[in-house]
Parts: sequence; structure tokens; C-alpha cells
Amino acid sequence: MSSQTVPAGRILPAPSDRRGFLKTTLALAGGAAAGLAGPARAQGDPAILELPAHSKGLGQPVAARGYGLPSEYEKNLQRRESPGLTRVPQASVAFTPLQGTFGILTPSGLHFERHHQGWWDIDPRQHRLMLMGMVRSPKVYTMDDLMRLPSVSRIHFIECGANTGMEWGNVAVPTVQYTHGMLSCSEFTGVRLSTLLDDCGADLKKGRYVLAEGADGSGLTRTIAMERALDDAIVAWGMNGEMLRPENGYPLRLVVPGVQGVSWVKWLRRLEVGDQPWYTREETLHYVDLMPDGRHRQFTSIQECKSVITTPSGGQTLVGRGFYNVSGLAWSGRGRVKRVDLSFDGGRNWRPARLETPVLPKALTRFNIDWVWDGGPALLQSRAIDETGYVQPKLAQLRAVRGTRSIYHNNAIHTWRVQPDGAVSNVQVG
Amino acid sequence: MSSQTVPAGRILPAPSDRRGFLKTTLALAGGAAAGLAGPARAQGDPAILELPAHSKGLGQPVAARGYGLPSEYEKNLQRRESPGLTRVPQASVAFTPLQGTFGILTPSGLHFERHHQGWWDIDPRQHRLMLMGMVRSPKVYTMDDLMRLPSVSRIHFIECGANTGMEWGNVAVPTVQYTHGMLSCSEFTGVRLSTLLDDCGADLKKGRYVLAEGADGSGLTRTIAMERALDDAIVAWGMNGEMLRPENGYPLRLVVPGVQGVSWVKWLRRLEVGDQPWYTREETLHYVDLMPDGRHRQFTSIQECKSVITTPSGGQTLVGRGFYNVSGLAWSGRGRVKRVDLSFDGGRNWRPARLETPVLPKALTRFNIDWVWDGGPALLQSRAIDETGYVQPKLAQLRAVRGTRSIYHNNAIHTWRVQPDGAVSNVQVG
Repeated sequence: MSSQTVPAGRILPAPSDRRGFLKTTLALAGGAAAGLAGPARAQGDPAILELPAHSKGLGQPVAARGYGLPSEYEKNLQRRESPGLTRVPQASVAFTPLQGTFGILTPSGLHFERHHQGWWDIDPRQHRLMLMGMVRSPKVYTMDDLMRLPSVSRIHFIECGANTGMEWGNVAVPTVQYTHGMLSCSEFTGVRLSTLLDDCGADLKKGRYVLAEGADGSGLTRTIAMERALDDAIVAWGMNGEMLRPENGYPLRLVVPGVQGVSWVKWLRRLEVGDQPWYTREETLHYVDLMPDGRHRQFTSIQECKSVITTPSGGQTLVGRGFYNVSGLAWSGRGRVKRVDLSFDGGRNWRPARLETPVLPKALTRFNIDWVWDGGPALLQSRAIDETGYVQPKLAQLRAVRGTRSIYHNNAIHTWRVQPDGAVSNVQVG
Repeated sequence: MSSQTVPAGRILPAPSDRRGFLKTTLALAGGAAAGLAGPARAQGDPAILELPAHSKGLGQPVAARGYGLPSEYEKNLQRRESPGLTRVPQASVAFTPLQGTFGILTPSGLHFERHHQGWWDIDPRQHRLMLMGMVRSPKVYTMDDLMRLPSVSRIHFIECGANTGMEWGNVAVPTVQYTHGMLSCSEFTGVRLSTLLDDCGADLKKGRYVLAEGADGSGLTRTIAMERALDDAIVAWGMNGEMLRPENGYPLRLVVPGVQGVSWVKWLRRLEVGDQPWYTREETLHYVDLMPDGRHRQFTSIQECKSVITTPSGGQTLVGRGFYNVSGLAWSGRGRVKRVDLSFDGGRNWRPARLETPVLPKALTRFNIDWVWDGGPALLQSRAIDETGYVQPKLAQLRAVRGTRSIYHNNAIHTWRVQPDGAVSNVQVG
């Protein structure tokens, strides 16, 4: 599996013959600098002076692709289903290849997928959103109605509550794509949910909850606390500068920053204001925390502070001792990431990583740190701390409270083992 | 032309029969809320209770597309060449459809293109970057060498120096795609140019300039001042979370925040440190400012503070009087945008717009403002002010200094006229 999910060539260089290549390139570049590049100017050994095709001729025209795509050399970098995870692929997961992404934004083409009854490409001209329940004026909005309203744009992460779920037990999933890949981060654009509630005259004295319902076959429904609905929730149509992708709820989805993905209802068709939770299937049977005493904890929704090293990560191989840029992601459903520490010895010693800008509330934060690998065994860990002071827990700390039979809400410190041959693998350490 | 470039359906709704639809949807949604949705529960008029296909059956599986694409309903939103702009499409421009984008990020598939000899998809395993000239140790880097070095991620805009160039004269290009669409904004990841200069031991006492050269057939070269090279320039491989697209320089391009796009050399293959500018073709013959006295001003490179309203914009039609969210973009090559004011009467009265977060230095900033259209004629303008206190000039102010025969560096206030029938068009106002 790892060979399918590791991007070709990243941190896996075949050592090149630098001396020989330098000679070649210097000869060429010297000519180019003086405006002499090109096959007609070749002198001496033709094998050395042959320019690549792309330096000689006309390439592709502009707008060859009205909508561009990645390089042919990047085709291996895909979101992938974990085989056998669910009974049907319409109610399954496709994971984001975090080992091959950069910065804080997830390319929309690699955004993770979690569907309950498959995805559809819904005609936006036919799509409607109804707001009803404890409101003065129930309304049905067309997409055009919504897009005339005051809009906002915000960058936020979305994480499935079941992300890293396999790690509760002793299953060490091999790559970061499968351990943490139900995680993405995008810029969302839409109308604040509070604006719509105001537009319909929601009863904010008695109305304490909002039900969100999707238009897909699963009729997925989740209860949102009114406090959260009035805070930073968005009824969104835009993602990363364009309309939502069909797999992400086109043309309309609910964005509930900091809250697990299941509440970000896709293909959003209905909002209802009520005075108590709806206790729907997806908040009573699923997305609940199985505690050691056998009870289920319901309505856990905030994704607590968490981090993971993405480079290097499981399935990759370090090519030799020396300098590496170790990089990863940190996030918190409570606000901003304040600090990320890294350990290379399984948690005995820690060093603070550099945080890239911008560091935004309820968004992914990219960290980088310098590391010189001495060629010996190493245990790489990252530990995030958010602005509330909450510290990402060790796996043993989390298991002491939550047991080992949960599926959801595992935010433990994650460990990658580096072996002397350079192989990186997932191990479960304290 | 405008009918090709206006996205279908945005702010152009056909008024729906709300009362009739509300009845239908209420009936359906009531059933769904009680878990009773589905054709088997249909009662009364079947025409009213028929659910759409996507609410009844299984949709597409996860990972149906390992790399996702926009909805079929968004196919009209493309980057487009302006016909006849150049002699060959390999040395031309494809413009970003700003009228249909949201937030501050440009979808990579819609990133504008400006090539001098066409684009290529270069094999990253074969690609090399040479750093030479006034350095202690000239080096040739493979992509893997570069990706092991300390990396940074930053969100920045890129604007072609010729953006809005047609507006110097009396050519009122019809849509914002063609007036301002040589503009995009992305998160870039790479190694700081200063890190590479340090790695090669650049002579920072005598070395005052860096030459950047691309690997395409045009051998495009630009001189970068050392001050800028040491500041925030990045040798980048990542764009919006993934590898650069071929049209944007895959696998390596120079990012020079705040500076016009031509200096962001694509397919970057060589950097040279020197003690004087190279006076290359693209900085002496092109990308120079023709002044009223007939002289050429060279080495203008910073993109000054500028803004434009993207919704509504030329070619679109307002469907009727009433409330609109007016939205647009502002940016400055000098730092952060501090304020954007909007006028609806051609510059007599101004109101401050809301700036969306994050507001980042040398990045696009999205603004929004409420507007109630009374159905009369209107002249919409936006005026940006950056953190240096610089105020975006009126067109007449700019022409007074620069004349009307320039191509480059037009950052004047732009005007859209709204006519009583709702039609929006480009007009040149003071």
C-alpha cells in the first residue's frame, strides 16, 4: 500500500553525479547567459551540449486547458479509499495524501471525501435551501437569493471525527494518508448562518438548536447548538476561490468551524430551529465516544488540538544521514495554534518548530523544523499547544481516559519510527 | 464575448415561484425530518411529492475521481485568451475569470497564464537549478536537494505588469476577466532565495543583483535587486498545497512578492549573482513604461496599490432593484491593504467596505459591501489604500503623469456603469 501512496521522488532522490552534471549545465548555461543557447551553437561534445526539447521549441499555447490540471508527473498523488473499510464505496472514505501536500491549503482535487450514500452533482438552478421551525418567516432560498446576501470568506480546517480512529487499538496504519488523511483546509465563502437566522426572524429566546439536513439519499441530519450557529458558522457555496466541488456538497454546504466534519452538512437543503436536540442517527448511533465503562458519550463535536508530521512519514525512506526539513500540520477546533514542539527521541527532548504564516483560528497551521539525521534509530513526534493552553495528549494519557475501543476523536501525539536503513513507519509509543 | 465569460446564474436569477415551491418543499421536508422521506411515502399529488433522484438513490462512490474536478454546471468558468491579442497563442495571455471567483485564493485551474514561448510539463527528475556568478561555491541543485532545505509557505498575489493595460487608451474592455484577469493569488511553498544565496556563499558586498533564467525556449531572464532577493523571495515548488501546475512553472518558479509577474521566472533553471543589472530584453524592450515625453522608464517592478469590483462587473446584469452584496479585490505590492472605499456615484461619495480575513501583506484582500440598488443609473468604483498610506489614483491623475500610450503598470480606479435595465459595462471615468 505504501508504494501507492508515497509521492514519487519526494525526499527519495537517487544521488546524482553532481560533478558530471555541473560540467554539463555550466557549459549550457554559459551559452544561454550570453544569448548563445540553442543547438545551432553546439560546440565540442554534442552529447554534452544537447538542450532539452523544452528549451528549444514552442510549447503548449495559453488556454490549452481552460481549466488546468496537475503535471503528468504527479499522477500518483491521489485521494484513495482504504480497501475494505466499509461495505460499499458510496458510504466510505477517500483520504487526502497529506504526505505530498504543502502549506495549509488542501488542493480541492485532493480534498478528503466521506459520503453516507454517495455524491451527486446537483443542478444549482434547481437547488433550494429552506429555513423553518421556530422562526417568524420560514423561507426558501434559491442559490441566487443566497448569493445576493452579505458574504464572508474564511480559511478553516475540516476533520472527520473518525480521523486517526484506527489508532485507538493496535492497528498501526502505514501512511499519514490513512492515519490522518480525513483532514483538509480551504477558504470558504458564503453567507453567515446568523444572517439567515436573522433574515427569517429566528426565535433566539426559545430556539436553542438548529437542525441541518442534506439533500443526498442518506438525508444526513445533525443538530447544531444555537451558540455555534450564531458564532462563525457559514452556509457556503465557495471553496478555495470557486464553487464547491460536487464531492464536497456542491452547490451548498454548512461550514461549522472547529466542529467535526459530519456537522458540515453537504448538499444542504434544510435548516430548522428548535428548542431541543433532534437526537438523529448520526449523533446517537454514530459519531459517539465509546467509553471504557461501556457508555456512549454523545455530542462531542469540537476537534481538539492535534498535530502530525507529514514529511517524513510512514512509507517514506530517508536517503541518507544529514540535513532534513521536517514538516507537518497542527490545528485546534478551539482557536489558534500557539506552539508546536518536536521530539526526535520519542518524547524525551523537545524543540519548538517554526510556524508558517498565516496562523489562523480553526485552520491548519504548517510547521517546519531543521533536523540533522545521524543515521541512527529515531522516534519522531509533534506536540501542539493551542491558544487556550491545551496540550495535545500522549496516546497513553488519552487511552487512560477513553479506553481503546473508540472510533472517534483521537487527537493523540503520533509517532513515526526511523530505522537505520532510512525506512519510516508508524509505531504506537506511550 | 461577455456571454462567454459571465458565469451562468450568478446574480442572474430567474425569479422563482416561491409560494408554489415552498409548499412542495415543506411537504417533503416535513417527511424527511420525521425520517419518512422517499417515494414510498408519497401521498396526495405525486407531482408535488416526487423527490429528486439525488435524494433517493446511491450516488457516486468515494475516489470515483482520485483527483477531483469542478461541477459539470461550472464548465463555462474558464481562463480565456483574448482573441487577437498576440500573434501566436504560445506567446499570449489567458485571463482568470475574476467575475466568478470568491475569497482571496485563485483556483490553480483558473490561474492566469502568460507565456513567452508556450508551456511544457518538465520532468522534475531531470530538472536542475544552478546558482553561479559572484558566489564562493557555485552549485547545481536537484529538486530533491531543494526539498530537503528549510522551506516556507506564504500567500501572495501575482499580477502581470500589463494587467489593465488596455485601459491606458480609450479601449474599454468589456469584462473584469479581460480588464483585470492577469491577477491571481496562491499559497506558495519553497526555499527562501536568501537560503540558497547563503548556501552558495554569495558575495553580498559586491553582488548587488541576481539574474533569474527560465528553462523554456524563450530563455526568459530578469534582474532582481539583491535587497529584494534577500527579503521575501522564494524559490517555489508548491502552489495551493500541491506541486506547481505546468502552466505556472512546474517544477520550479521564482516568487518575488509584490513585484510584477514577469520577474516570477517559471521553469527556473539558473540564478546568477552579479554587480550590475543585466539589461535583458524583458527589462529594456518590454515591461518598460512609455512616458508622455517619449522616454522609457525601466525597472518599474512593484505593483502599486490597486482594487477592482468583481461582482457586479462588466457583462453582468442586475435582475432588479434591491439588496446586493458588492464584492471585489484589493492588493498592494508594498504590503497590506489598509482600507477600501466604495462609491456608487462615480466618486462623489465613498463608504468603507468590509475586509475579509486574513488581510496579508502582498496578497489579495477580499472586500464586501452592502448596496441597495434603487434602479437608477449608477457608477461603481473602489479605491484602495495600503498600509504605507498610498491611495489608489484616479485614471485622470495617472494619465496626467504617465500619458495614455503606456502598456504597463496601470493601477487606476476602475468604473463599472449600471444602467436602469440592470446592464453593467466598463466606462472610463475621471
